[in-house]
Amino acid sequence: MNNMPSAQAQEDEVLYLHRVSYGETDCMGVLYYAEYLHIFERARTAFTHARGLSYKEVETRGIYLPVREALCRYRGPARYDDLLTVACRVAKPRRASFTFAYRILDESGTALLAEGWTEHACTNAQGKPVAAPDWFRRAFFPPA
Amino acid sequence: MNNMPSAQAQEDEVLYLHRVSYGETDCMGVLYYAEYLHIFERARTAFTHARGLSYKEVETRGIYLPVREALCRYRGPARYDDLLTVACRVAKPRRASFTFAYRILDESGTALLAEGWTEHACTNAQGKPVAAPDWFRRAFFPPA
Amino acid sequence: MNNMPSAQAQEDEVLYLHRVSYGETDCMGVLYYAEYLHIFERARTAFTHARGLSYKEVETRGIYLPVREALCRYRGPARYDDLLTVACRVAKPRRASFTFAYRILDESGTALLAEGWTEHACTNAQGKPVAAPDWFRRAFFPPA
Amino acid sequence: MNNMPSAQAQEDEVLYLHRVSYGETDCMGVLYYAEYLHIFERARTAFTHARGLSYKEVETRGIYLPVREALCRYRGPARYDDLLTVACRVAKPRRASFTFAYRILDESGTALLAEGWTEHACTNAQGKPVAAPDWFRRAFFPPA
Repeated sequence: MNNMPSAQAQEDEVLYLHRVSYGETDCMGVLYYAEYLHIFERARTAFTHARGLSYKEVETRGIYLPVREALCRYRGPARYDDLLTVACRVAKPRRASFTFAYRILDESGTALLAEGWTEHACTNAQGKPVAAPDWFRRAFFPPA
Repeated sequence: MNNMPSAQAQEDEVLYLHRVSYGETDCMGVLYYAEYLHIFERARTAFTHARGLSYKEVETRGIYLPVREALCRYRGPARYDDLLTVACRVAKPRRASFTFAYRILDESGTALLAEGWTEHACTNAQGKPVAAPDWFRRAFFPPA
Repeated sequence: MNNMPSAQAQEDEVLYLHRVSYGETDCMGVLYYAEYLHIFERARTAFTHARGLSYKEVETRGIYLPVREALCRYRGPARYDDLLTVACRVAKPRRASFTFAYRILDESGTALLAEGWTEHACTNAQGKPVAAPDWFRRAFFPPA
Repeated sequence: MNNMPSAQAQEDEVLYLHRVSYGETDCMGVLYYAEYLHIFERARTAFTHARGLSYKEVETRGIYLPVREALCRYRGPARYDDLLTVACRVAKPRRASFTFAYRILDESGTALLAEGWTEHACTNAQGKPVAAPDWFRRAFFPPA
C-alpha cells in the first residue's frame, strides 16, 4: 500500500490509494456499488489526515460532520485486486455545511471509474447545526 | 420479519421491511450511510419478486441492470433493531434505462428517514445497452 | 420474507430466514465468508425476539454480550437470491458466558451449507464479566 | 498508509497495516466482529503479494483457495481510526490444504487485539480438491 499514485492530484485534492478486496466485489465480478461509499469515507479520512487532523479529533473538539446526501456516478467497473486512486477535495464550503467531491481513477490514473460527492452538515454533539469554526475552515476549506 | 408494514404503499410501490442489525450500525450509534444502498438493493429485489420475477431470472433471460448512478438523502437516523419500511417503485422508464425510487420510513410509517434513487441501464451480458424487452416493461414499468 | 421455513427446528432452536443479496456475494459468485457472521448475528437477534426480549432491552438492563470467539465451517456454497434457513440455539450455558450455535440450511432444509458458533461473555457496561442474571438465564438458557 | 509497522514480524510472517474506518465500527463503538474476516482477507492478499504473486494470478493458473473454516478470537477492542498491524503466516501446510494464521496488534505492536486462522482447500476451477502444485508450495509454504 506504499505505492506512489500515478494520478496527478488537482489543486486542493488529496490522493488515497485503495486495493479492491474479494469481499468488496459481487457476483457480477466487480466492486459492489455500496462499497464506493466506504471508499469515499476512507478518502475523506486521508484528506483529514493530510490536513493535520483526524476526524476523531474533530469530534473531540465538539464538531460532528454527518452525511446529509451522497451521490455516486459509476462510469466503469473496478475488479478484484485493482489498485484505485481516489482524489478527494472540499467543494461548496458554506457556513454550516460543505461537500467532499471524489474522483476514482484506475491504477494508471487515466480512466475515470467513478465520481461522486457527499454533503456534510456541521453540528454539535446534539446534532444541532453550528457554524464551522475558524480552525476547521482553515484546515478543510480551500483558500478564498 | 413477517410483521405487517404500518406504512401505506403509494400506487406502484412495493413495501419491504428491514430490521437494522448491529453490523449495519457505526460508532455514532446509527445505521451507516453506505448500508442504505444495500437496503435499496433488497427493496428492489422485493419489488422484482412482487412482479413475479427474480433478478436471477432477468439475468438468465439475458438482461442485466447495472447501476449507473445512486443517490441517498439522509433525513433522520435509524438505530439498531429498528424495523424500517422501504417503499420502492419504478420511475422514469426509458428505452434502455430506468430508475428505482425509494422512501425509507420508520416503523410507524410516518417519519421519512431517507429517500433516494438508483438509475439502471438495460444491457446485454457484454454490457452493451439494449432496449428493455416487452416482458420486462410489462413486469417492471408502471402502465402508461 | 414471510415464507415458512421448510427445515425442522430441533429442540430449543429458533429458525431465521435469510435471502442472499447481491451485495453479500463475491466475485467467485457465492456468499462471501465474512457475511456468515452477519447472518449469525441476525439469527441470534431472531432467537432473542423469539424469547420475548430484544438485545437492545438486554443492554438497557445493564447486560452486554460481547463476542469472545467466532467460528464458521463452510460446507457448501450459497448463491444470490437463495433463501437460507438459519437454526440458532444456546449451547454451553455457564456462569458468565454461553455459546450460540448455528446451522445454515438451504431452502429445502435438507443440505447443511454451513455451521458455526459464537461464544459470548456476560459483562456489565464497563466490560467486566458478571454472572448471567436469573431473568436472562430463564429466557435464554435451555431448561436444565 | 505508508507508515512503518512498529510490530516485529516473526519468521515467515508478513505484516499488513489496516486503518479502522467508521463503516467498520458498530454502535458499541468498536470494530464489528465480522470485519475481522475482511481484514484477514486483506492480510493474506498482502502475504501473497509479498511472495511475488497475486491471488488473481493464482486463480489464472487454475488454483482456487476457498475458505473451509474460519476462527477469530477477540481479545481487546479496536476503535475508529486505530492503525492495526496484522501479521499473517502459513501454518499446517498439507497436500491439498493449508491454513493462514493471523495476529492483530495495536499500533504500538505490543497488545494482541485478536488472533485467528482460516483453513483453505486447494481446488481446481470445478471445486475439486487438487494437490498444491510445486510453484505454489515454493511461494506459500514455509521451508521444511
